[in-house]
Amino acid sequence: MRIALDAMGGDHGPGPNVGGARLALEANPDLAVVLVGDRAQLEPLVAAAGVPASRCEIVHAPNVVEMKEKPAEAMRRKPDASVFVCWKLMAEGAVDGLVSAGNTGAVVAGGLKTRRFLKCVHRPGIATVMPTAKGRCVIMDVGANVFPKPRHLLEYGVMGGVFAKHILNVPEPKLGLMNVGEEEGKGHELVQKTYDLFRNGPLKDRFLGNIEGRDIHRGAIDVVVTDGFTGNVVLKLCEGVFEFVMNMVNQEIVAPLPNDRDVATQAVRGLLGKYHYSAFGGAPLLGVEGVCIICHGSSKDRAIANALGVAALDVRVKLNEKIVAELEALPPGEE
Amino acid sequence: MRIALDAMGGDHGPGPNVGGARLALEANPDLAVVLVGDRAQLEPLVAAAGVPASRCEIVHAPNVVEMKEKPAEAMRRKPDASVFVCWKLMAEGAVDGLVSAGNTGAVVAGGLKTRRFLKCVHRPGIATVMPTAKGRCVIMDVGANVFPKPRHLLEYGVMGGVFAKHILNVPEPKLGLMNVGEEEGKGHELVQKTYDLFRNGPLKDRFLGNIEGRDIHRGAIDVVVTDGFTGNVVLKLCEGVFEFVMNMVNQEIVAPLPNDRDVATQAVRGLLGKYHYSAFGGAPLLGVEGVCIICHGSSKDRAIANALGVAALDVRVKLNEKIVAELEALPPGEE
Repeated sequence: MRIALDAMGGDHGPGPNVGGARLALEANPDLAVVLVGDRAQLEPLVAAAGVPASRCEIVHAPNVVEMKEKPAEAMRRKPDASVFVCWKLMAEGAVDGLVSAGNTGAVVAGGLKTRRFLKCVHRPGIATVMPTAKGRCVIMDVGANVFPKPRHLLEYGVMGGVFAKHILNVPEPKLGLMNVGEEEGKGHELVQKTYDLFRNGPLKDRFLGNIEGRDIHRGAIDVVVTDGFTGNVVLKLCEGVFEFVMNMVNQEIVAPLPNDRDVATQAVRGLLGKYHYSAFGGAPLLGVEGVCIICHGSSKDRAIANALGVAALDVRVKLNEKIVAELEALPPGEE
Repeated sequence: MRIALDAMGGDHGPGPNVGGARLALEANPDLAVVLVGDRAQLEPLVAAAGVPASRCEIVHAPNVVEMKEKPAEAMRRKPDASVFVCWKLMAEGAVDGLVSAGNTGAVVAGGLKTRRFLKCVHRPGIATVMPTAKGRCVIMDVGANVFPKPRHLLEYGVMGGVFAKHILNVPEPKLGLMNVGEEEGKGHELVQKTYDLFRNGPLKDRFLGNIEGRDIHRGAIDVVVTDGFTGNVVLKLCEGVFEFVMNMVNQEIVAPLPNDRDVATQAVRGLLGKYHYSAFGGAPLLGVEGVCIICHGSSKDRAIANALGVAALDVRVKLNEKIVAELEALPPGEE
């Protein structure tokens, strides 16, 4: 299969994108990567990386959306920016998927603009994978849809569940609805109505009900359903708390050790690597035709390679067909 | 001053409440505590604790709101529950403040029912104090108002700022609005409208704009303004991530140390104590007449004592007068 990579996207420019493509090509023999970006910058990098030309094409895109640029404006002013060219290639059927570490808003805006949503999907959403005490969980949505309707959240539960099953290999994913308390009736109208949709729908046997912020990392829930505002705060807060706690651990636990400081420093590095977002292969925008994986702006080679690997896996397992099949089993409902 | 303590509230019953009262009385010579609860259970505990009777009165309340009980129902069925008797004592002027580790929803419901809000306050909110890399910050609201209006959030900024200034001793508290990105125009209608109110109001010089989840713990913001839904998720998520990371630290860093395991275990304990919620004196419900401090259900003696100490400090510095003075400086606005 062929995956387009927004080779100019991310905080570090094309370097980690080309490096990531090289790693992904090594790991996935059935993969070909289309690097989309400034040909003049990309050609020497590709040559230096020693990537097989037969599996790594360059498609020129003269522009880049900057990380701080407003997506709607960028779309008007730079229709030929690398990320939008990736979407165009996917719409034309020239690639099966796309990966970008660029401006998240622009990646999502590009996808919404195509309006090529999967059958039965009202609004695509971003899923992200988090480590927990017992493995991993999916949180959806983390920012594509900041003021959703209950029906959107129901569909996110379905899509997140299919992703957990076929990509994370959880046989019967358990779902939870992010709320401010466990009891039925908690929270605002959106979550109350969403609760009813889950409780009375075909997912009811896998729906564990409302969950609270402290439940996510305990690992009992495989799919956390939430609006894109709350989900985005959750995602970035986890990053912040992890950074904060690990700094404290270094200062207050590791630094004062009389004998084992080096061993402990190594262990800290191992833990940071194990729970770093780069280990989890980016965040898929689910609900669009094709595959779209959004990476953290600060992604390096390994993070890009993992995202390309997940994109390839999504294509291989026919994730979208499985999503549509489950969505078709939902009772019809207004948006 | 006199502070009522919901002596039956919390996961551990009256024990930690009486223990906390004893510690607080020792630390605050100007304090008297009114223990509200079942006299038969409280009398022997008070006698055993050796608390001076002149500064520790018992007011009998025959009922308790259970932790899982629905607040509205509890209010109907048990108007004589300890937490509601605390509110009654405050409404009558018999006490200056109240502290409860009981059912948070019931504490808030009791306060909303009195309708004794401070002048210029449309809706009370819960403020909580969090550790950061540079000290502490206040987050408001964390659960009293899950679907607020922009005006409520503006008032939370004012109240949180007064709390940060006079209780946490931050001379010029900087405010940030919880959002999904830093740029103006991000997020849903509530935060967009709230942004405008801050940007064009008397707090504009202290308003740092939108902040993201990862900014909270970095310590640049003293007051994080957010709706009660997001704030509640943030509060509980921080607890969950902290627990998760510290478990990983124990397993993957401390346990394998060849020589310094005991030293490191001590340091872990120190860090857990330093960043445990009990160190931060409970969460004030700001905007009501009198003082109300809500404690974590699992509070032990030290947490209760710290909350009583903060309640006493609120009274001492006349926090409410200062809140009203700042709210009066806001331009009038519809709710």
